[in-house]
Amino acid sequence: MNHVLAATLLVRALNLIGTFVFALSGAVLGARREMDLFGVLVLAFVTAVSGGIMRDVLIGAIPPEAFSSWHTLAIALIAGLLGFVLYDRLEILRNPVQIFDAAGLGIFAVAGTQKALEYGLNPPMAAILGMVSGIGGGMARDVLTAQVPIVLRTDIYALAALAAALVVIAGHAFGLPPALTDLPGVALCLFLRLMALYGGWRLPSAHRKR
Amino acid sequence: MNHVLAATLLVRALNLIGTFVFALSGAVLGARREMDLFGVLVLAFVTAVSGGIMRDVLIGAIPPEAFSSWHTLAIALIAGLLGFVLYDRLEILRNPVQIFDAAGLGIFAVAGTQKALEYGLNPPMAAILGMVSGIGGGMARDVLTAQVPIVLRTDIYALAALAAALVVIAGHAFGLPPALTDLPGVALCLFLRLMALYGGWRLPSAHRKR
Amino acid sequence: MNHVLAATLLVRALNLIGTFVFALSGAVLGARREMDLFGVLVLAFVTAVSGGIMRDVLIGAIPPEAFSSWHTLAIALIAGLLGFVLYDRLEILRNPVQIFDAAGLGIFAVAGTQKALEYGLNPPMAAILGMVSGIGGGMARDVLTAQVPIVLRTDIYALAALAAALVVIAGHAFGLPPALTDLPGVALCLFLRLMALYGGWRLPSAHRKR
Repeated sequence: MNHVLAATLLVRALNLIGTFVFALSGAVLGARREMDLFGVLVLAFVTAVSGGIMRDVLIGAIPPEAFSSWHTLAIALIAGLLGFVLYDRLEILRNPVQIFDAAGLGIFAVAGTQKALEYGLNPPMAAILGMVSGIGGGMARDVLTAQVPIVLRTDIYALAALAAALVVIAGHAFGLPPALTDLPGVALCLFLRLMALYGGWRLPSAHRKR
Repeated sequence: MNHVLAATLLVRALNLIGTFVFALSGAVLGARREMDLFGVLVLAFVTAVSGGIMRDVLIGAIPPEAFSSWHTLAIALIAGLLGFVLYDRLEILRNPVQIFDAAGLGIFAVAGTQKALEYGLNPPMAAILGMVSGIGGGMARDVLTAQVPIVLRTDIYALAALAAALVVIAGHAFGLPPALTDLPGVALCLFLRLMALYGGWRLPSAHRKR
Repeated sequence: MNHVLAATLLVRALNLIGTFVFALSGAVLGARREMDLFGVLVLAFVTAVSGGIMRDVLIGAIPPEAFSSWHTLAIALIAGLLGFVLYDRLEILRNPVQIFDAAGLGIFAVAGTQKALEYGLNPPMAAILGMVSGIGGGMARDVLTAQVPIVLRTDIYALAALAAALVVIAGHAFGLPPALTDLPGVALCLFLRLMALYGGWRLPSAHRKR
């Protein structure tokens, strides 16, 4: 009972943190593009909730989490406001959009995989849906700002989300409590993204193989 | 009983008008981009139904209204044909896409909020879903034509839709019949958009605050 | 019984072939844009499943086919790998993306219409949903690579999908077994697309009528 409770609390806490950092990534991008305050808030909200909404629509969890309580909305708006006000200070991080995005990616991949497992999807498909939860928010943010989504143009992105999801699936297969796999999953994703961003880690690409 | 009937008829009439004007905005944009006739019709249809489809998928009204009767399809096709044939005459309106869009925005925000309330969402979330119904069609139209959606690049857009939705929510809270709030909601949205387009009304933006 | 079984097998086989060719079209496009291996696989998967997912979400078939068995995923990944490795050889086809796309378009339009009929939609709406299944994958692929979708910029595209869907609807109305209409439907779509690509067939466009 304690385990289950702790696991549920952990997933909820992760979801709220993921919402916050993804919203921040959207807000910074919107502010950089000189959108007005409400446009920034809309982009922050869309970035924060799109991955979870895709997952919830695909597993039949209707209405999606983002619309069934006000927590997500409130956190996205707070993060959006912060991003709007502080965006030029955040630019001292070499690439604030990508750093916040990397944290959200791992968190949502883990939380999305857990939720898909709860809804009875088989583990490989739950991992794919976890990956979708992770990459969906950044995808929506980038499509709406008319760029090729980060998932398709940057290195080791969807793969990092999938790695996090597979940690969760492995833990599930061995019957471990989620609390033991969730944070390592997030950490693995974040590590892979940071190595891709700053350590030059690459997958082969069609061009480079020539 | 009469009240309920009148309200239902009003929402249905609004939906049909919103479908028409949004389809027209898509058709004019498609014709301007030199799409062929069928491409124009597809873009008109997508613009007209995307907001409602997003709302219906999110509240679990499956199949969405747009696919459960032929009215929406028929009206979108008529508007699409008109837009295709008349698009260069419509250009005498300074900005026909944005004017038709503004009318559709308010209408769908109001009708979407009413429908979300009917489906039992709590009022703040119903307002957000109303806003989504309003902004979804233009978002789909603009993403498909590879531009940043109007909701993110123009002033007082999502805010105007939200204002219309909040009028409906307020009326609901005070137990007023929808007929008393729907038209004022649409009018408020249209007024705010026209002031943004022609009156220079602005929200602060990240750039301008410096 | 034999008829029903044969029809079901035919639709399933068509779906797998459609998945393969659409995934190939996405993989070739991704490789040409110098995406890395995993990015190519993601784009191949998204192209292969988006049309079917749109259809399944809209008719309430949750979780969508693409997530309820591993066949779709496996085939999309194989096609994606092939596209990644062979993409420069495939370029000897004058336009490999559009040729694979044309085959997938007809196949998914037919299979999508059949599925929508099974789920009880009325025939005209089933045809529209079949068209959506057909055009959805290419739409997602093109939006994610920041181009105007092929359905809006090329000739006789959505119309070819609709023609295939209408063949299925006509067969359904006359009580013919699906096996008799599915392949002719696919062939009609492919013929129309090839005539548009290589035979110069055109619909009127807003510009040309002047």
